[in-house]
Amino acid sequence: MTSVQESRLLRACRREEVDATPVWLMRQAGRYMPEYRKLREKWGILDLIRNPELAVEVTMQPIEAFDLDAAIIFSDILPILEPMGLALSFVRGEGPHIANPVRTAADVDSLRTVPPEDGLHFTLEAIRLAKRELANRGVPLIGFSGAPYTLASYAIEGGGSRHHINAKRLMMSQPTVWGNLMSKLANAAGAYLQAQAAAGADVLQVFDSWAGELSPDDYRHYVLPHTRTTVEMARQSGVPVILFGVGTASLLELMASTGADVIGIDWRVELDEGWRRIGHDRAIQGNLDPVALFADWDAVRSRTDRILQQANRRSGHIFNLGHGILPNTPVETVKRLVDYVHEVSVR
Amino acid sequence: MTSVQESRLLRACRREEVDATPVWLMRQAGRYMPEYRKLREKWGILDLIRNPELAVEVTMQPIEAFDLDAAIIFSDILPILEPMGLALSFVRGEGPHIANPVRTAADVDSLRTVPPEDGLHFTLEAIRLAKRELANRGVPLIGFSGAPYTLASYAIEGGGSRHHINAKRLMMSQPTVWGNLMSKLANAAGAYLQAQAAAGADVLQVFDSWAGELSPDDYRHYVLPHTRTTVEMARQSGVPVILFGVGTASLLELMASTGADVIGIDWRVELDEGWRRIGHDRAIQGNLDPVALFADWDAVRSRTDRILQQANRRSGHIFNLGHGILPNTPVETVKRLVDYVHEVSVR
Repeated sequence: MTSVQESRLLRACRREEVDATPVWLMRQAGRYMPEYRKLREKWGILDLIRNPELAVEVTMQPIEAFDLDAAIIFSDILPILEPMGLALSFVRGEGPHIANPVRTAADVDSLRTVPPEDGLHFTLEAIRLAKRELANRGVPLIGFSGAPYTLASYAIEGGGSRHHINAKRLMMSQPTVWGNLMSKLANAAGAYLQAQAAAGADVLQVFDSWAGELSPDDYRHYVLPHTRTTVEMARQSGVPVILFGVGTASLLELMASTGADVIGIDWRVELDEGWRRIGHDRAIQGNLDPVALFADWDAVRSRTDRILQQANRRSGHIFNLGHGILPNTPVETVKRLVDYVHEVSVR
Repeated sequence: MTSVQESRLLRACRREEVDATPVWLMRQAGRYMPEYRKLREKWGILDLIRNPELAVEVTMQPIEAFDLDAAIIFSDILPILEPMGLALSFVRGEGPHIANPVRTAADVDSLRTVPPEDGLHFTLEAIRLAKRELANRGVPLIGFSGAPYTLASYAIEGGGSRHHINAKRLMMSQPTVWGNLMSKLANAAGAYLQAQAAAGADVLQVFDSWAGELSPDDYRHYVLPHTRTTVEMARQSGVPVILFGVGTASLLELMASTGADVIGIDWRVELDEGWRRIGHDRAIQGNLDPVALFADWDAVRSRTDRILQQANRRSGHIFNLGHGILPNTPVETVKRLVDYVHEVSVR
């Protein structure tokens, strides 16, 4: 058995040669799996996250079902906001809801700083348990956090949002208040990622799902310095850091400037062009359109071939979707995709 | 009074010198205006579109309120689908709904080809009436259509959609059926644009609001040839054509290859970088984040200054938002923006 440090994922993060391209899928533990839906009949999403045994069970479901090169701890980007003082709930069918969103300077000042060992102990415990489960498989475990902008957007909007009007208004109109909020979130995310590494996470991913809503200039001024703080804190733990965003075609150089070891891209950028812009001194993760998995196998295969051809067997490519796997994705296609990536990328 | 042909908008479309940068705003006639909301208390959106007198009244509302350099005929991209055989309605608060969406080869075959003079006579009549209203002001009138991909997405999904699963699945899995659908839509949109020019429209805009959901390779193979058909048909009428899309940072060169006179970009691309990629032999339209209008005036002003500095008084810039103006946008900020663009861009 290969050690985790010599696994395909870790080797790819370090841009070392691999025997085949590593593959994992964002939200690989989720609603498209019947095993997961069965658990969700009984438990709410926050129940699963807060119970380490259940979180590990969900984490392992895709590892049992598919030949994946990484597990990712089952959690969500939003529980980090709870110990800070925000009242988070998930309304079935409607997504996350924060009852007391951040809107004023006083709201920002009142956000608490709580050590992750206290406020997010359940996920740290789940990481310790999952590492035991994964130990004899040689499969690395990914920990993760939301990036400051995406966390700020949820904290201000109080949930999902199409246009991010409240978040952007605060950012544009009250830069000092915004900076204080982002600074608190950046440090909280950084400390959380460090704690996950200390608990055993082998790789850390920073999700900036909403960064692509910003103009490059707004991203540069109001977001990048804080994302850099989070990435730098995470990298201090000595494990590789993946920085991922959606709709980031104009932000790739700025994202690379955070120092992240791997940049995750979506399908809106050609992988070869994206890699050239990020720089070949970085690893890259991506980038199949998750909707392709709803199409015929030939369509999945041709798009997978194209991505692998663009990666051109260069060291440092991690195959993934360009965003999280969608509910109702056919499980059989997922299985076939994972096997196919290994089969055709074998060195 | 300046003739329409010598108006700022038309001169900018032809990349000629202007006395100040022309400005208009996508969805400038819409819910943010109290005059419009008052009409909507009495009439549904399709009522307003199908009644030429009312459509002209709405078209003129922002022209009366602001010093805009263009009117755009009040309509929607979806009525073109009705004469083709699709049952369109607008559900208050929920947006468009198509009761019989296109899903099969038979559905595509049964789509009818109806001359716009028959199926969309109300908008053509509204254009004729609006031109009379605008005649003594020297303000040009913009006609428009949805682009084939955006129309196909609505026709297949049956309404708005977050992930476009049905549309993309048909595109990826049944390329022949997809090609037939896109060909019908491209020709219908092209004929509609020609009819609008014949009725008096001075400029034509093609809205591809959803193109940015596609990978560049999918756009190139399954969309671009059809968008090119629409743009080429529109340009045959002898008026300038604007091709606009959202999230198109990776598609700009391909969009320019359609031959459109002007490319409309959103705020996710820096205007100078976008123009370089489109080529300075084209005009460019954009690109203020519509959410900026919710911020303090200083924030609007600094972002407007930046866009105008990037345009660098080069001939061929049309100031606009990067997407449609949002409901609840403060009217006072809109007025101030329009005046400010003229004031600081004066040559």
